Amino acid sequence: MKKIILLILFTSFFGALGYAQSALASQYDLMPWPKEIKENSAKFMINSDVTISINSDHSERVRNVAIHFLRQLSNKTGVFLKEGFPVASSQANTILISYDEVATLNINTNESYTLEVNNETIKIHANTDIGALRGLQTLLQLVTNNMTSYYIPGVTITDTPRFVWRGLMIDVSRHFQPINVLKRNLEAMAAVKMNVFHWHLTDDQGFRIESKVYPEIQELATDGLYYTQEQIKEVVAYADNLGIRVIPEIDVPGHASAILTAFPELGSKADYTYSIERNSGVFDPTLNPTLDSTYEFLENLFTEITPLFPDEYFHIGGDENEGKHWDENKDIQNFKSKHKLKTNHDLQTYFNIKLEKILNKLGKKLMGWDEIMTPNMPTTAVIHSWRGENEGLANGGSLIAAAKQGYQTVLSNGYYIDRMQSVEHHYTVDPIGDVTLTDAERSKILGGEATMWSELVTPQTIDSRIWPRTAAIAERFWSTKEVNDIENMKKRLATISFQLESLGLTHIKNRDVILRSMTNNQDIAALITLTKICEPLKIYARNKDGIEYKTFSPFNLFADACVVDAHDASNFNTAVGNFIKTPDTQNTDSLLSYLEKWSSNYEQFSALALNPKIAPLEPLSKNLSSVSKHLAQAIKTKFITSSQIDEIHNTLTALKTPVVDVELVILESLNQLTNYSQTHFTK
Amino acid sequence: MKKIILLILFTSFFGALGYAQSALASQYDLMPWPKEIKENSAKFMINSDVTISINSDHSERVRNVAIHFLRQLSNKTGVFLKEGFPVASSQANTILISYDEVATLNINTNESYTLEVNNETIKIHANTDIGALRGLQTLLQLVTNNMTSYYIPGVTITDTPRFVWRGLMIDVSRHFQPINVLKRNLEAMAAVKMNVFHWHLTDDQGFRIESKVYPEIQELATDGLYYTQEQIKEVVAYADNLGIRVIPEIDVPGHASAILTAFPELGSKADYTYSIERNSGVFDPTLNPTLDSTYEFLENLFTEITPLFPDEYFHIGGDENEGKHWDENKDIQNFKSKHKLKTNHDLQTYFNIKLEKILNKLGKKLMGWDEIMTPNMPTTAVIHSWRGENEGLANGGSLIAAAKQGYQTVLSNGYYIDRMQSVEHHYTVDPIGDVTLTDAERSKILGGEATMWSELVTPQTIDSRIWPRTAAIAERFWSTKEVNDIENMKKRLATISFQLESLGLTHIKNRDVILRSMTNNQDIAALITLTKICEPLKIYARNKDGIEYKTFSPFNLFADACVVDAHDASNFNTAVGNFIKTPDTQNTDSLLSYLEKWSSNYEQFSALALNPKIAPLEPLSKNLSSVSKHLAQAIKTKFITSSQIDEIHNTLTALKTPVVDVELVILESLNQLTNYSQTHFTK
Repeated sequence: MKKIILLILFTSFFGALGYAQSALASQYDLMPWPKEIKENSAKFMINSDVTISINSDHSERVRNVAIHFLRQLSNKTGVFLKEGFPVASSQANTILISYDEVATLNINTNESYTLEVNNETIKIHANTDIGALRGLQTLLQLVTNNMTSYYIPGVTITDTPRFVWRGLMIDVSRHFQPINVLKRNLEAMAAVKMNVFHWHLTDDQGFRIESKVYPEIQELATDGLYYTQEQIKEVVAYADNLGIRVIPEIDVPGHASAILTAFPELGSKADYTYSIERNSGVFDPTLNPTLDSTYEFLENLFTEITPLFPDEYFHIGGDENEGKHWDENKDIQNFKSKHKLKTNHDLQTYFNIKLEKILNKLGKKLMGWDEIMTPNMPTTAVIHSWRGENEGLANGGSLIAAAKQGYQTVLSNGYYIDRMQSVEHHYTVDPIGDVTLTDAERSKILGGEATMWSELVTPQTIDSRIWPRTAAIAERFWSTKEVNDIENMKKRLATISFQLESLGLTHIKNRDVILRSMTNNQDIAALITLTKICEPLKIYARNKDGIEYKTFSPFNLFADACVVDAHDASNFNTAVGNFIKTPDTQNTDSLLSYLEKWSSNYEQFSALALNPKIAPLEPLSKNLSSVSKHLAQAIKTKFITSSQIDEIHNTLTALKTPVVDVELVILESLNQLTNYSQTHFTK
Repeated sequence: MKKIILLILFTSFFGALGYAQSALASQYDLMPWPKEIKENSAKFMINSDVTISINSDHSERVRNVAIHFLRQLSNKTGVFLKEGFPVASSQANTILISYDEVATLNINTNESYTLEVNNETIKIHANTDIGALRGLQTLLQLVTNNMTSYYIPGVTITDTPRFVWRGLMIDVSRHFQPINVLKRNLEAMAAVKMNVFHWHLTDDQGFRIESKVYPEIQELATDGLYYTQEQIKEVVAYADNLGIRVIPEIDVPGHASAILTAFPELGSKADYTYSIERNSGVFDPTLNPTLDSTYEFLENLFTEITPLFPDEYFHIGGDENEGKHWDENKDIQNFKSKHKLKTNHDLQTYFNIKLEKILNKLGKKLMGWDEIMTPNMPTTAVIHSWRGENEGLANGGSLIAAAKQGYQTVLSNGYYIDRMQSVEHHYTVDPIGDVTLTDAERSKILGGEATMWSELVTPQTIDSRIWPRTAAIAERFWSTKEVNDIENMKKRLATISFQLESLGLTHIKNRDVILRSMTNNQDIAALITLTKICEPLKIYARNKDGIEYKTFSPFNLFADACVVDAHDASNFNTAVGNFIKTPDTQNTDSLLSYLEKWSSNYEQFSALALNPKIAPLEPLSKNLSSVSKHLAQAIKTKFITSSQIDEIHNTLTALKTPVVDVELVILESLNQLTNYSQTHFTK
């Protein structure tokens, strides 16, 4: 029986993958975890003789990524390679890449590959060049070392993705993101095998794409912050080179403040002064769906910009139109009566269907947020599921409903990374879960997208809001459902996160930049300690009613230096749990190391010359120090007085109130420890 | 008498500026130091009411920089401004900017401004919009704080530059630098009032500019790393917006390996296989100056690209042509005889004069490195002085010679920042020095340029090689000659350096990125300690004969994490000097703090899991620890044995040999301390 129980325990970690897979996942920090991996006894040494050889020069993608691979390998290992570019003929110490055909990127692209590491050669084979790219990313993650050398351990991997749509959406409207920000994030996406960049190009806060037909757009709706058509092409080509499709989103008919600033005559409310929005939220400006000129405008615009985006899918937004300006406009009401459109939803469906015809003419498939899934909407549209419990619906419900109704569909509910929730939260959202689907229904579920809405992020902080959590989401989309062990994921994620930094991501290094700025370049150690146990307020609590932060507010504050999944918090929480369960020397020491660090941290904090940016953190640091000191003392002496317990409780209460838009995420554990001390150490 | 001596001391610091100026320079961290600054008792508070108002909307430059100023102000202070954009009418708490005219950038642009800070208003006035930009940069540097608020202290500044040409050259051939690298460096240049970006676009290692007339260039001479013409325009517009001129350099007839890879028929040696160069140094491939096709090619190319660069000056390189392939080519020798060109210099002058005619037709002035200054070269050319003692000439000699011969001229000798020499070295190079010049001669000396050759820098490390030293060079070019106090410069530079980080520069933060990569994300504290006393090998010693590092070699090694002017070295050297002079408690403690840090650092280092990148540093860390421990012990106990002294000397000798391309820059001080210990503490 015992053996069976053990087996059940292991399979609950790795399900169908079984024990061997589980052991390997402790050993190799691969993410996303491949479909199948076997070990052999080989070792491919990384020395200066290593070369790459490609079976064909038809794919620019493979050649470019292979060159980049050589640079990354060299930088990672410090090895001075003799050959910095792919060589024609294979020899010893060669990485042999072969593929059968060059793919055109679409939802049917074959991304599978095999990877075989032997002593003298590494073979990556794939049906398409895209599969070869995916294999090279896995290979880079396999590089490891001992004291004297870097090498790639002998493995054979057979890999293929679970979902065909593994996306990241970046909102460049609320805060404009220059193309170098996009490029480094595309590199990171490719590193974790994501394949769709959804570019949320327009919203109330700015319309970010140059139009030559309507230059009023960039003149009036962008604050000068937009992509030229050449830059759009540059990003699309960059993404394609990495095997990533680009889906543009032009959000209509709502979220239209910016575009109506340039073209107020297309708005639903007469004599309304439209202006670029500076706050966050859902706003009233909406295109007028009853005007021919609206469709003429959109057709001209779409005709101009669709050639920039070779992908078949085109996102028209369609979300969060509350129809207030439609209700207030008599002509629109009359139009509804005349066309027998009972509700504003019907009117929007009328609008969407007109748009779909325009897009179809241009060879595009219409995609929209799940509000577009109305009874009359043709199933040729693609439903982007985003609403859930917060909007009064079942989480992910619109995804399943869409699939059952015959719509292609993509899930973002559960992957809203701007809500600043833990990686665990997102990782445990499975697009399908336990729902039973027919093959036809299953085929409609394309995959998912993490969404980086940018109300609260700037180019300086966006990476730390996307990464590393999105790597775990990427695994959810690529790997089988059974790859779901959270602790193992976190272990691998820690390695992947640091490796992503080598692509130029700023998610780690910009913390210190912000802290240096906050302190006027004083010693930031005391603040670093605090960032490791403080997290930014979650689920939009940071920007109450959307008006605390405007688009031009400062975003290099303490909350911007803090990240989700604060580094010390989860370890401390574990340490407290262990100690309470087994208060032996090891668990006691482990716990005390945290308490003593926080206890003494206030002294370091106090050495700082205060200024208005640091000063508000002073009570937090002081209170944390006080609680930590008392608890450490109690644990060391096994004694604490009732009045000290009272004092701790009071201090913990004070610590509960968030300051400077962060919350201390170890309060629950400190509370447990206080209760434990009360029970065990008061006499 | 005493008073007079004091006065002499002070004026030796600040010369004609006198005592008041000196005191202010201790107080305000402005760089470059303005021509005239006076204090008043006002304080302009930074609160949410602060606005900017501009007297005219004719200058896009002022509007854009003013918006950027508001963002920087907000980020620096954490103040949530109510108005994120310039406002039309002035009111209380307003920064009033006014200028008389919009400048076209050239060497005659008036860059002067006045700045007046009062309690309720700040007034920046300038003759041109460019002067207004310069004033805004000074204003940002004035922002300061106390515990409770940020404010701008009451001052009146009248400022104007000493030289009209204050440049930074970036070589994008040896290592390609993407445009975001250039943009952030342009921002930094503007912050220290530099006004010329010299773009070294071509060399043996790559020709980095797209040609539509000769697409073979990007296909064969770039490895795919080049700027499209749209990107060139983007950078030029970005620079212009900051008041920075852009001077392109197409280096001919030497440094031509890349271009001859695409067009071997223009080379001087028949049947030679040209290829993009991967090593560093001076190479033989040279354009053939006797062929009509060479001039036809250059005329077509220049005709295509000169419209991208509105500036009048056009740099044709002209340096380091050793003429080996000319000597080996009979046709070229015959051509020389026929045209009575005695030397290869004469032949190159023939070439240069033909080029000048082509450029003149295109409205451009020819500029070249100082080899072009041959007896027959017309004085319409501009001489870029670079050679000095290392090339067997007087340092800066060609600058003065050029001016005296009537050439416009710019100095780079002494400002080769890729030589990895101290900021002090560059700061003390004055373009004119004590040479007496007529007004006419003086007017020919336009200014100077720091040169960032890129054999050993990548996008990851280039910022830390340019900054902060270039800010001190910028001061040399802007401020009066009498602003030359080195200690005061270093104090101000420390502040400016950290402030530059807010522009996105990576010169500080990328150290830790490299160290994390080296250690596989272990604790980097032990390595940070070493980076603060180690510097990369200087004056090209790192890349012996130019062949140790190829363009594709790794550049994220320990040497790449280290910088010139290592942080702890100069402080330690001072501490040793102080101790030897006055071994009191304070000086002893100060010294011991360093020795004890290094002594214990080996323990931290030893805790690292070694790998091939860290292992070579182990002896350095160990030896440093041993020496530090012995010396600390000697100083504390006032006793050391002769055999210990011998041991120290042996260890210091071992430490003298550079490892991993860095040198320990505290050896001289450790030696002094050892000798002191021997004299005072052996019994």
